[in-house]
Amino acid sequence: MLDDAVGRVAAAVPQGDRVAVQAHLDALTKPPGSLGRLEELALQVGCVLGDPPPSLYSAVVFVFAADHGVAAQGVSAYPAEVTAQMCANFSGGGAAINVLTRSCGAEVRVVDVGVAADVAGLAGIEHRKVRAGTEDLSAGPAMTAREVVDALAAGVEVAEGADAWVVGVGEMGIGNTTAAAAVTACLTGVAARDVVGRGTGVDDRGLARKREVVEGAVARVVRLEDPGDDALEVLRQVGGLEIAAMAGAMIGAAARGALVLVDGFISSAAALAACRLCPALPPYLAASHRSTEPGHTVVLDALGLAPLLDLEMWLGEGTGCALAIPVVRAAGALLAEMATFESAGISGPSDDGGGVAP
Amino acid sequence: MLDDAVGRVAAAVPQGDRVAVQAHLDALTKPPGSLGRLEELALQVGCVLGDPPPSLYSAVVFVFAADHGVAAQGVSAYPAEVTAQMCANFSGGGAAINVLTRSCGAEVRVVDVGVAADVAGLAGIEHRKVRAGTEDLSAGPAMTAREVVDALAAGVEVAEGADAWVVGVGEMGIGNTTAAAAVTACLTGVAARDVVGRGTGVDDRGLARKREVVEGAVARVVRLEDPGDDALEVLRQVGGLEIAAMAGAMIGAAARGALVLVDGFISSAAALAACRLCPALPPYLAASHRSTEPGHTVVLDALGLAPLLDLEMWLGEGTGCALAIPVVRAAGALLAEMATFESAGISGPSDDGGGVAP
Repeated sequence: MLDDAVGRVAAAVPQGDRVAVQAHLDALTKPPGSLGRLEELALQVGCVLGDPPPSLYSAVVFVFAADHGVAAQGVSAYPAEVTAQMCANFSGGGAAINVLTRSCGAEVRVVDVGVAADVAGLAGIEHRKVRAGTEDLSAGPAMTAREVVDALAAGVEVAEGADAWVVGVGEMGIGNTTAAAAVTACLTGVAARDVVGRGTGVDDRGLARKREVVEGAVARVVRLEDPGDDALEVLRQVGGLEIAAMAGAMIGAAARGALVLVDGFISSAAALAACRLCPALPPYLAASHRSTEPGHTVVLDALGLAPLLDLEMWLGEGTGCALAIPVVRAAGALLAEMATFESAGISGPSDDGGGVAP
Repeated sequence: MLDDAVGRVAAAVPQGDRVAVQAHLDALTKPPGSLGRLEELALQVGCVLGDPPPSLYSAVVFVFAADHGVAAQGVSAYPAEVTAQMCANFSGGGAAINVLTRSCGAEVRVVDVGVAADVAGLAGIEHRKVRAGTEDLSAGPAMTAREVVDALAAGVEVAEGADAWVVGVGEMGIGNTTAAAAVTACLTGVAARDVVGRGTGVDDRGLARKREVVEGAVARVVRLEDPGDDALEVLRQVGGLEIAAMAGAMIGAAARGALVLVDGFISSAAALAACRLCPALPPYLAASHRSTEPGHTVVLDALGLAPLLDLEMWLGEGTGCALAIPVVRAAGALLAEMATFESAGISGPSDDGGGVAP
């Protein structure tokens, strides 16, 4: 399932020709480049989805939910049962991601790939549980190699089955900034202390404990050979079920030719793992926002992505994706609907010194 | 008309109590503050529009269009006839602001307050022409005091007559970054050279000419007494018909209790003039984005506004407002629709050191 999807991403031909899409953007009735980053996004949309792109009004945000054994180490401001309680909140439609996807007219799909409690009774939650939470990554591997592959496959499958052209990938899982920090440190080589932040708002004592936990786990993993080149092994050792599923979902969405919106720190750590597993993935990825979690900037730099929004958010759930969806639609609409100087009969730049800057 | 509107803004009572709205935000199912700037915007929405706010799905962006005599000085990359040509493009629905407002489901209303050409035959353009373009501000006053008041009144009237709760204010007018730079320098005291940029993309020769023009005009005006305290006089000397109308529209929208989205440099210069005319206006203003025009940051600082978006745009037309409208709706939806920890039965922070950061 994963290998098939990776192969399809590698074999895909871009829908739009970069030079032709850029020429189209430059012919539209605005000074060239005057829509800044929105034009860069339109260029990506045109290349990935075609010029003009298909309608971008159907968009989906996936929320992969799972628990983390490491939560027992006191690395989070909230108790582990909040993961399952938030699944009930998602089911009831009252969480931030429900509200923000409704607000922009996108669908939200919550997928349980590893919540410790039984949430099978909750309406609207998709059940793909690989196991009931990971082992404590501070004591040993978080899961087995088989479980990593199963979680990746769950992500590939749900994302390949969705029909939206814009796919956001978010998460819920108490303890998962700890796992994301460890994954980031292993995959980038950046020191653990530089990628650990307060997550959901842990206090100074909790932060110190979280640093110790991540440093210890990373030290254990980097004793292995070339961990950074083996994303599957890094996910097995210090990852999370939802992190693996998110990586799979990004690959699955790209295999179908969709544009993938990465959310915050955890989603970006998953994107980094996904890019190691699927080197043809980067052109499909757009970073929705920059979170305040310090590791996020490290991952964005490693991915070479500049975020669209910077609203100092750190909630997760895919909330950054939901806010970026209207921006992606706007970028696509420029290509689909804007007049050109020629079609609108508008004069070009003056030729008298009040000319266009080089 | 203007004095009435200013009086209504001054007499208005906030719809929401700041302390109560903040308490509501802190009770929602997310770590307090985790939605960052979106929560700050929700606080403003709640105070201005009430908590819960009314539906924010009806939103409007006004585009005030006018010409500038100073365009004859070669301060723009485009010839002056582009203002009227762009009005035809707005009428045909092919300009960026048409596309971006359609994309987010907002209305666009284009108001001619001073286009040099006769655009009365264009469908969908509202006709409030005060005069056919200003005089050349490099040679003397741009307009008469009566014309300033008429343009302000046109803005007040159209904005007070609109029924949307979110009102964006944008513009079209070849030469208007020159006028906005002069207005900004006069109202803030910042040196002209620090507020002049390339506008629609003028080349080095055009930029040097533009600096000279703005420096000369500002020097002429600041010889008068206290120009910075007399926004009407600054608008008369170096303003524009659309800049005055935009200032009026912001006051008119606030008089009706709406939230006002400021666009880029020119819109922000109008906001600065509006705040001088109507000191009770600031709580109603939100800055949609930061443009790359260097004077914009000067005006935003003077207004004390932090922009929601920073996409390196410099097009104008209200395009920044159109992109920010979904963000405002999202902020309002948090107040209207999110569950609280209590209503959702979700555990609060742990009490074991993995507690909430102070």
